[in-house]
Amino acid sequence: MELGLIGLGKMGGNMRERIRRAGHTVIGYDRNPDLADVASLPELVTKLQGPRVVWVMVPAGAPTQQTIEELSELLSPGDIVVDGGNSRWTDDEKHAALLAEKGIGFVDCGVSGGVWGLQNGYALMYGGEAEHIARVQPIFDALKPEGEYGAVHAGKAGAGHFAKMVHNGIEYAMMQAYAEGWELLEAVDSVTDVREIFRSWKEGTVIRSWLLDLAVDALDKDEHLDKLRGYAADSGEGRWTVEAAIDHAVPLPAITASLFARFASRQDDSPQMKMIAALRNEFGGHAVESK
Amino acid sequence: MELGLIGLGKMGGNMRERIRRAGHTVIGYDRNPDLADVASLPELVTKLQGPRVVWVMVPAGAPTQQTIEELSELLSPGDIVVDGGNSRWTDDEKHAALLAEKGIGFVDCGVSGGVWGLQNGYALMYGGEAEHIARVQPIFDALKPEGEYGAVHAGKAGAGHFAKMVHNGIEYAMMQAYAEGWELLEAVDSVTDVREIFRSWKEGTVIRSWLLDLAVDALDKDEHLDKLRGYAADSGEGRWTVEAAIDHAVPLPAITASLFARFASRQDDSPQMKMIAALRNEFGGHAVESK
Amino acid sequence: MELGLIGLGKMGGNMRERIRRAGHTVIGYDRNPDLADVASLPELVTKLQGPRVVWVMVPAGAPTQQTIEELSELLSPGDIVVDGGNSRWTDDEKHAALLAEKGIGFVDCGVSGGVWGLQNGYALMYGGEAEHIARVQPIFDALKPEGEYGAVHAGKAGAGHFAKMVHNGIEYAMMQAYAEGWELLEAVDSVTDVREIFRSWKEGTVIRSWLLDLAVDALDKDEHLDKLRGYAADSGEGRWTVEAAIDHAVPLPAITASLFARFASRQDDSPQMKMIAALRNEFGGHAVESK
Amino acid sequence: MELGLIGLGKMGGNMRERIRRAGHTVIGYDRNPDLADVASLPELVTKLQGPRVVWVMVPAGAPTQQTIEELSELLSPGDIVVDGGNSRWTDDEKHAALLAEKGIGFVDCGVSGGVWGLQNGYALMYGGEAEHIARVQPIFDALKPEGEYGAVHAGKAGAGHFAKMVHNGIEYAMMQAYAEGWELLEAVDSVTDVREIFRSWKEGTVIRSWLLDLAVDALDKDEHLDKLRGYAADSGEGRWTVEAAIDHAVPLPAITASLFARFASRQDDSPQMKMIAALRNEFGGHAVESK
Repeated sequence: MELGLIGLGKMGGNMRERIRRAGHTVIGYDRNPDLADVASLPELVTKLQGPRVVWVMVPAGAPTQQTIEELSELLSPGDIVVDGGNSRWTDDEKHAALLAEKGIGFVDCGVSGGVWGLQNGYALMYGGEAEHIARVQPIFDALKPEGEYGAVHAGKAGAGHFAKMVHNGIEYAMMQAYAEGWELLEAVDSVTDVREIFRSWKEGTVIRSWLLDLAVDALDKDEHLDKLRGYAADSGEGRWTVEAAIDHAVPLPAITASLFARFASRQDDSPQMKMIAALRNEFGGHAVESK
Repeated sequence: MELGLIGLGKMGGNMRERIRRAGHTVIGYDRNPDLADVASLPELVTKLQGPRVVWVMVPAGAPTQQTIEELSELLSPGDIVVDGGNSRWTDDEKHAALLAEKGIGFVDCGVSGGVWGLQNGYALMYGGEAEHIARVQPIFDALKPEGEYGAVHAGKAGAGHFAKMVHNGIEYAMMQAYAEGWELLEAVDSVTDVREIFRSWKEGTVIRSWLLDLAVDALDKDEHLDKLRGYAADSGEGRWTVEAAIDHAVPLPAITASLFARFASRQDDSPQMKMIAALRNEFGGHAVESK
Repeated sequence: MELGLIGLGKMGGNMRERIRRAGHTVIGYDRNPDLADVASLPELVTKLQGPRVVWVMVPAGAPTQQTIEELSELLSPGDIVVDGGNSRWTDDEKHAALLAEKGIGFVDCGVSGGVWGLQNGYALMYGGEAEHIARVQPIFDALKPEGEYGAVHAGKAGAGHFAKMVHNGIEYAMMQAYAEGWELLEAVDSVTDVREIFRSWKEGTVIRSWLLDLAVDALDKDEHLDKLRGYAADSGEGRWTVEAAIDHAVPLPAITASLFARFASRQDDSPQMKMIAALRNEFGGHAVESK
Repeated sequence: MELGLIGLGKMGGNMRERIRRAGHTVIGYDRNPDLADVASLPELVTKLQGPRVVWVMVPAGAPTQQTIEELSELLSPGDIVVDGGNSRWTDDEKHAALLAEKGIGFVDCGVSGGVWGLQNGYALMYGGEAEHIARVQPIFDALKPEGEYGAVHAGKAGAGHFAKMVHNGIEYAMMQAYAEGWELLEAVDSVTDVREIFRSWKEGTVIRSWLLDLAVDALDKDEHLDKLRGYAADSGEGRWTVEAAIDHAVPLPAITASLFARFASRQDDSPQMKMIAALRNEFGGHAVESK
């Protein structure tokens, strides 16, 4: 089939490649003309035969918002927009409603796979009405990993991004689990080979996983991670997961602890621990470390 | 080679079977005569040709302590005792010293694998001196999974149990990660098929793992886990992990949150939340739920 | 001075009384005619001499929103609206802008004091422009506790509610601190008189506080809190505190733990712990508690 | 009455002074002869008329252990030893048993008050048998704050230190509560005067407390705590509180979060966050900060 694809960065570019390898036609647009197949959104729309499917793969927030608004002006009833970016699930309902007014369908799709996706396929979680999903299905089939897993119709519009967001929240806590265990093992004198312990866990253990494999890969490059700073960014989806949990009164202690550990890792000095130091000094005359 | 094996319960019995399949001779002792090959510890020791290797696979704490003390009286210099149970790593140093006085070697070995071990092999983490490890190596090779992973010499005496303990701590937080994500997905109306989301994650995602596979198996038996109570025991190793972290001033927020969630799951009513309710009532006249 | 007061419930009614005792004139409106001094908002506005100050004391969200919109139609340039309810600080900026279009000033005020406020005074945290604050100052002075503390100009519009929200977040964690300590003391056999321990802490300790006094009052009524369920509601401000922290990448582990403990206290059975139980069953054949 | 007091450091010296002011006779011993009234423990014991009461005020662990063992040799049946140091409650039972063999009584006493104790009195939590407590009561009465609070017979031997330990655990979480709130307020632009907000909370709020007063004192010396490093030691009692909770399967999320925040504050770089950074790099090609 024919697909319009907007956004040809690291993710989008690889996805175009994977879809083409599956035999589909992809017309790509990007603000960067070196990457693009067409010069503008209107040209993209013109070149696609109706009914069209246009996949938006641009940064979440304003860029996605603007692109969908533009498409709502350019597309025709019966066309479908897929938001494959990292949009917050609460935006999807608005976008679905905006497009529905023009008779345009909407599907949201959370995409996982990172730099490995081109080769191994992308895990896909999509939300929307079954008839819209069905229209995009050949593209989903091209992008997903081989085998029976890796793609799911998660529910109504927004459910795809919601499922992807929860995936990332789980990912935060799994990474934190390995990281805590690694630090503890490194802290103990009688344990002499932490890297080999991690490596041994790759088979026969309850905690074997792809993330564990990656941890071993990382330790093979730098056994004690001496070359890295203990500094971790967060991409928004961990925050949204906690906010969604708060909205639904779901306790999320491990995922939230993982998010807060990242926040703390980015502080040069901890303001709250200054207050702890100040209070200890006030009531106990405890020595404090001054700058 | 020849191995004495003490403790032939669910774990020990399967391990005897796997070691025998590898062509070794196992003489097993258990308090239950229906399971045992010999009638007593002294008979076990007599039947083994020296220098002996005796593997202790009995409950941690007093049973292991007593067994090792008895063996210290029965065995000869040059023999080796392996503690393959779930002993706390702090006990290992004491046991190693007790046996060393008699010239008997000591190896501690954390064993993972549960009901899957007989078929797939057991992950092994062992600690002790290299010469002692070398003597037990054929048994380790019989027990471990096929392939290049699944067994590691983690360090000095105690390091095997320490590594296994940390493995279990990581396991607690990974299970909690999936559990939190599952609860959040189940709480949201627009998400209509949580089980299929979990299933889709088996390929192409960052969070694919053996535990995830098990979660899908469990959901296939009981889609919303309606037949279960939200009640989780803990086996000691999670607690010890947190205590070890405290000893070494290592922050372990996600693993500890996972342990505390289990504690709370076993309370019919939460005493601390009674105090919260009482305080709210005192200062705000907030309605409280009385029994 | 003369004040219009909208909302004469438990809080508003007592505040009217305290302001009147200070010699000011209060014209109160409430949807419940038994409580109200006037029959309608337009009548309230008519009866007040300009330039008017109108204090809105109705539930946060839609009721406050509607009231402020109505007032924006009824009031005149130079009048001032005070939002003394529990509004989210993010609403304040919108309300300030809406009213500013009509030349009407806006002050937000977080009010603490509960059932004790009539007698002891209300702690006040207000935000807005200095000239607007100055106009309301006599009312703030009437409401605040005697002495030099209890009222603060916290910053721009929204800062009053923000400060009150953080106050409540701190309150959550302080309550949780006492509650955790109480549960631990009650769990230990050698400790025979937990209530008297709490009482003794009222003097000479680092942790003496008004909340501790309330805890002792509660224990005097019901020594082991046997009559209460471990069930705690949350009022919104704890949630907003965590959300604000997430927005600013501030780690808030103790306050968030306190919020999540409340969420968990309201679950009859914990979905996430069902998943933990299911996983333990899958990999270990651990007994699970079925319903 | 007459008291032997061992350990005349910052705490012990002030306590001697307060007891003397109450009209009692204190004979003090310290390893530092400049502080001591007698030259040795035997001389201390000789100078006291029987039946004796000897208060041990030396560091927890080995120093206290040794002192009590020495006293068990020097004292006579009917004498009483009070351990007023920061001993772990699990040591008290051993000490009580050791002394009981010689007919010597034992009382453990947790003491709070720090540098403020000489003037305001010390909060006391003691454990042991009623007849032993009664013998020490005049000294407790001299040390405690004036008024009806500040001293409690908490239970059996060990209960005094246990109660004091829980007091400190609560203190950790209360300090963390204020510290988190302070950091959040400082992070927000619209809030312009955090110190004055804290000051205003001293009256009329739910969170007024002595610790809050100290926070204001600290902010008056250094408004944004610019002169301090965010570095907080911990004294052992927070750790023991968490360990006791683990022993009794009591969830302690806020207190534990407070302890872990201190651990993290003392790390120049976080090993666990290096692992997070490494994993992010492996799966996503996320930029990491290298040293």
